Amino acid sequence: MPIPAPNLYPPFNIVRLSHVELVVTDLAKSRAFYVDTLGLQVTDETADTIWLRAMEERGHHCIVLKKGDTASARDLSFKVFDDDCLDRAEKFFSDKGLPVDWVERPYQSRTFRTRDPHGIPLEFYARMDRLPPIHQKYELYRGVKPLRIDHFNCFSPNVDESVAFYNELGFRVTEYTEDEDSGHLWAAWCHRKGGVHDMAFTNGTGPRLHHTAFWVPTPLNIIDLLDLMATTGWVSNIERGPGRHGISNAFFLYIRDPDGHRIEIYCSDYQTVDPDLEPIKWDLKDPQRQTLWGAPAPKSWFEEGSVFEGAEVRPSLLKAQPIVAP
Amino acid sequence: MPIPAPNLYPPFNIVRLSHVELVVTDLAKSRAFYVDTLGLQVTDETADTIWLRAMEERGHHCIVLKKGDTASARDLSFKVFDDDCLDRAEKFFSDKGLPVDWVERPYQSRTFRTRDPHGIPLEFYARMDRLPPIHQKYELYRGVKPLRIDHFNCFSPNVDESVAFYNELGFRVTEYTEDEDSGHLWAAWCHRKGGVHDMAFTNGTGPRLHHTAFWVPTPLNIIDLLDLMATTGWVSNIERGPGRHGISNAFFLYIRDPDGHRIEIYCSDYQTVDPDLEPIKWDLKDPQRQTLWGAPAPKSWFEEGSVFEGAEVRPSLLKAQPIVAP
Amino acid sequence: MPIPAPNLYPPFNIVRLSHVELVVTDLAKSRAFYVDTLGLQVTDETADTIWLRAMEERGHHCIVLKKGDTASARDLSFKVFDDDCLDRAEKFFSDKGLPVDWVERPYQSRTFRTRDPHGIPLEFYARMDRLPPIHQKYELYRGVKPLRIDHFNCFSPNVDESVAFYNELGFRVTEYTEDEDSGHLWAAWCHRKGGVHDMAFTNGTGPRLHHTAFWVPTPLNIIDLLDLMATTGWVSNIERGPGRHGISNAFFLYIRDPDGHRIEIYCSDYQTVDPDLEPIKWDLKDPQRQTLWGAPAPKSWFEEGSVFEGAEVRPSLLKAQPIVAP
Amino acid sequence: MPIPAPNLYPPFNIVRLSHVELVVTDLAKSRAFYVDTLGLQVTDETADTIWLRAMEERGHHCIVLKKGDTASARDLSFKVFDDDCLDRAEKFFSDKGLPVDWVERPYQSRTFRTRDPHGIPLEFYARMDRLPPIHQKYELYRGVKPLRIDHFNCFSPNVDESVAFYNELGFRVTEYTEDEDSGHLWAAWCHRKGGVHDMAFTNGTGPRLHHTAFWVPTPLNIIDLLDLMATTGWVSNIERGPGRHGISNAFFLYIRDPDGHRIEIYCSDYQTVDPDLEPIKWDLKDPQRQTLWGAPAPKSWFEEGSVFEGAEVRPSLLKAQPIVAP
Ligand SMILES: [Ca+2]
Ligand SMILES: [Fe+2]
Ligand SMILES: [Fe+2]
Ligand SMILES: [Fe+2]
Ligand SMILES: [Fe+2]
Repeated sequence: MPIPAPNLYPPFNIVRLSHVELVVTDLAKSRAFYVDTLGLQVTDETADTIWLRAMEERGHHCIVLKKGDTASARDLSFKVFDDDCLDRAEKFFSDKGLPVDWVERPYQSRTFRTRDPHGIPLEFYARMDRLPPIHQKYELYRGVKPLRIDHFNCFSPNVDESVAFYNELGFRVTEYTEDEDSGHLWAAWCHRKGGVHDMAFTNGTGPRLHHTAFWVPTPLNIIDLLDLMATTGWVSNIERGPGRHGISNAFFLYIRDPDGHRIEIYCSDYQTVDPDLEPIKWDLKDPQRQTLWGAPAPKSWFEEGSVFEGAEVRPSLLKAQPIVAP
Repeated sequence: MPIPAPNLYPPFNIVRLSHVELVVTDLAKSRAFYVDTLGLQVTDETADTIWLRAMEERGHHCIVLKKGDTASARDLSFKVFDDDCLDRAEKFFSDKGLPVDWVERPYQSRTFRTRDPHGIPLEFYARMDRLPPIHQKYELYRGVKPLRIDHFNCFSPNVDESVAFYNELGFRVTEYTEDEDSGHLWAAWCHRKGGVHDMAFTNGTGPRLHHTAFWVPTPLNIIDLLDLMATTGWVSNIERGPGRHGISNAFFLYIRDPDGHRIEIYCSDYQTVDPDLEPIKWDLKDPQRQTLWGAPAPKSWFEEGSVFEGAEVRPSLLKAQPIVAP
Repeated sequence: MPIPAPNLYPPFNIVRLSHVELVVTDLAKSRAFYVDTLGLQVTDETADTIWLRAMEERGHHCIVLKKGDTASARDLSFKVFDDDCLDRAEKFFSDKGLPVDWVERPYQSRTFRTRDPHGIPLEFYARMDRLPPIHQKYELYRGVKPLRIDHFNCFSPNVDESVAFYNELGFRVTEYTEDEDSGHLWAAWCHRKGGVHDMAFTNGTGPRLHHTAFWVPTPLNIIDLLDLMATTGWVSNIERGPGRHGISNAFFLYIRDPDGHRIEIYCSDYQTVDPDLEPIKWDLKDPQRQTLWGAPAPKSWFEEGSVFEGAEVRPSLLKAQPIVAP
Repeated sequence: MPIPAPNLYPPFNIVRLSHVELVVTDLAKSRAFYVDTLGLQVTDETADTIWLRAMEERGHHCIVLKKGDTASARDLSFKVFDDDCLDRAEKFFSDKGLPVDWVERPYQSRTFRTRDPHGIPLEFYARMDRLPPIHQKYELYRGVKPLRIDHFNCFSPNVDESVAFYNELGFRVTEYTEDEDSGHLWAAWCHRKGGVHDMAFTNGTGPRLHHTAFWVPTPLNIIDLLDLMATTGWVSNIERGPGRHGISNAFFLYIRDPDGHRIEIYCSDYQTVDPDLEPIKWDLKDPQRQTLWGAPAPKSWFEEGSVFEGAEVRPSLLKAQPIVAP
């Protein structure tokens, strides 16, 4: 099953991933992680919610932490080009028989929620409150110096289906992993904004949120974060890396927040704006696929993820296994 | 004269800047500069022409060096989204009374040349030959490790007019410099591909090509290039920097090729895909505009540039002066 | 006048430069500079004194800020190997007819003050209070992440004489600048601890303290400091750089504290422990001597310095001039 | 068994580690590794020998590759301060009943070989041929940009004994690992030249050479090397890292040459010239001891090493085990 031809004329224009809401069980602990350690900036906070943005973002939030009894992930949010796109998006999802609920979201104008065919909760809006730039307020930079949200990665029980659906939405595949034996997709990276991905899918029990990634200036900022986490009580929250991905060629680190939500710190992928960009194919058994330098990911990386609120998970259809660290 | 509202629905879709052809007087010397020193990759060469690409590019060329008797710049080339865009582009320029010549370009499919209202030669095409990826062939990386062409910057005799025209083409202004006294634009940075710019204009005798910029991984690669140039006979080709721009927040270095064509090495600007991104305004007299750290640019930087073949230059209308190094 | 042969068997063993006391006119402002901006750690402070150390130092202080009415520099302090060295040092200076005053210094054991033949106040001690390591307390790292004091540089009215004296003390010349015309030394770099220098001399009205340098991890930390200073009100305190020195091959930045005391941020020189290390000679007129990349230093760099308390300054004997920025 | 008090007045003055001779089975393959991949510079080569130096070294060689049938390590060589030290060294070893053989070594003046009490072959000399500096010939920098040899690390069957002996030679312990249960040393780092170590010992079957380390400018050079090795056929020669050591606070990578000789790439430790520097103690069971970020070393790292020619190995007395990767 080859990857589909890119849909260059999608029904509406998704500009980029925008933000995610994570349910966390201890807001103070999460604040210590996201604000004091990673260095995200608080743009608002109440008794049960913290809104955060990264250093070069002017939109009000890229991550929303919500106090709850059980950790989970809520909507993955995307910004569309204009209000007309929003209406066309609504029609698209309705026509597919997917639920469309217009919701109130602080700091956002018209917003609706829906779900993808596997049940991933999605949110779409065109305009969010804009804040003054802080990217040159260097006294505010802390931790890993996060510049912007970069992408979501989700476990999918059927990556072929996920790619087909997001392809229809105009996401273009930049790289993918095929299981040679079955010919099925094992993973895929799909973009809207001109980087390697806004959204990726990994074969596994799902739908679940595998991770949310933030872009940082250089690999040295990732080393700084490792040194900081290792000496401020977060050493066991370091899960995988640092390393260079084979796929995407990006430099990465995976860490876990206090509830186990996985965060990737990421930099140095490449520009993908050409409509005729050829996707790069990787073999599931290629040991340099995950990490160019050869180190396999640990078991937890393949098995653990954040459940989406209200989404039923099911095992993946494809049973092929990647190389896992012993 | 404020900057115009962005034209979010332009007549055709320019994806990004693509490449430039530079006339050079000594091909071997230019090869020593662009290939041996900067580290660009030769994709083809003949007795009088060298085609080059940067490390993450899959298109055949981002710069074409052409042997000639007198150094000059030829067409600034842009990639459009598809063939239909190319036809619409042709119509747009024809309707404006601007010349449209369909030309043969090696390694490119249908291509036409035109000129902007000030006489800058422009080239448009939709498809170029694609080459296998080399971004993970790390043994090929040399010099400054150039990853991709990033932008053009041109002297304009009337920046207000230039911005108005490119705005019509869908270029969106991300940052600009105003002369407070006259209210005129002194400089502007305009993008298509989601970075700070594909094209910028600087007030001055024009039209002339001020510089062509290449994106590199980190500021340390720029330091490596400085060390290399300083010890291999290129020290007097270092013109300005390194430094952090106030405008764009990018890290930069300006160097001159053997014919005086100016090349900028550039990294670390920010993502600009939001259609509602607010342009940032700078005052011409702000000393941190050019270099955040306060160092003014030298006189040569404000006065010297590459003449475009066949374009008549005229002095700039606006006489306001920036801060120049003594 | 060639540089003297190194004295490999000096009368006593100076381990390294240790610290300097600077008289500052506004302690709060100086604290904002050294602590909040550079990132030095306060080890003690009283109404009129602040003691500071850098991140990898275990000695109590590398710089002491003293409130005073007029800015000046006090003793340059050196650590000797043991108490016996201290006694031999005392004898050495006494025998030379130089003043030896045993003084009380907080946090130091037996300490004496003296002056070099030009009047530079010097301090010697063997033991200082030791503090617990903080080099792995990464949450304390701030600003430029200063790791340790690296060297002093002084204006000397007669560099030949200075070098001859410090050579007698066992300082070994690693690099030097000769005025080709007169054959006199224009500048010299002399070490004890195995780097390019603990002490350097620059031809000029003196004796005066030209600068005190701190070692940082990488050039990127210097870029971070520039970004921070440029956006927190310190932009006019940036004097020269960043750049690569021809001499020493180190990466550098010169900044001025609120009283004009010059601080160098420095990294990446080389190891010099070999007793047979050959000094490197530079010509005063070599433009790459100061900055490998060719940029000359500004006039202030050649003319301004901190007066040593109680030391009479006189013009330099040698009138030869280096290349100065226009 | 606590570490011994430092011997600050040793019988002779060892300046620093100098070089090692490695027997390799395929000289061309080893050249591809050390020269083409790491970037060491060939200073001489014959049919069966290659001499190499790193970029800032002026001595003729820091590593000598010798063609042989079986891979092994030969003498660990140290530079002494002067000829008199060499004579005193000879006397010291003779008095201990250790063998002293004066040998001819190309490019070195008077040189003798001996063995430490466990059988490690050692070489001492005072003067080696000096070569012109190349540290500012930036066109020669390649691979990981190795600047200088930094240290040896050896498996010792009895680390307490090794430390006692090298302490007598004037090596000072900077950090050490104790087995809490038995009170014995499990590992120790000992220096002469003012860094964390010239020589380290690790508990294990020995004597064997565990690794030889080279100093590089920044962690980014180590990332560059990983990218290069991963894409030029050396991916399986990457053994451990990159990471930050708990001990020494240095950034590291361990790789294996074509014969399995282990090389460490190393940077960013700290200055240790103070004679009163307090050694830092680590517990063998501290997971951050090996890698600050928590990742344990693989089994091969604890078990494999290069046999010294002519040295009988025996199991270590101490059976305590560190944390090993699963
Ligand atoms: Ca047509
Ligand atoms: Fe990711
Ligand atoms: Fe530019
Ligand atoms: Fe200095
Ligand atoms: Fe080591």
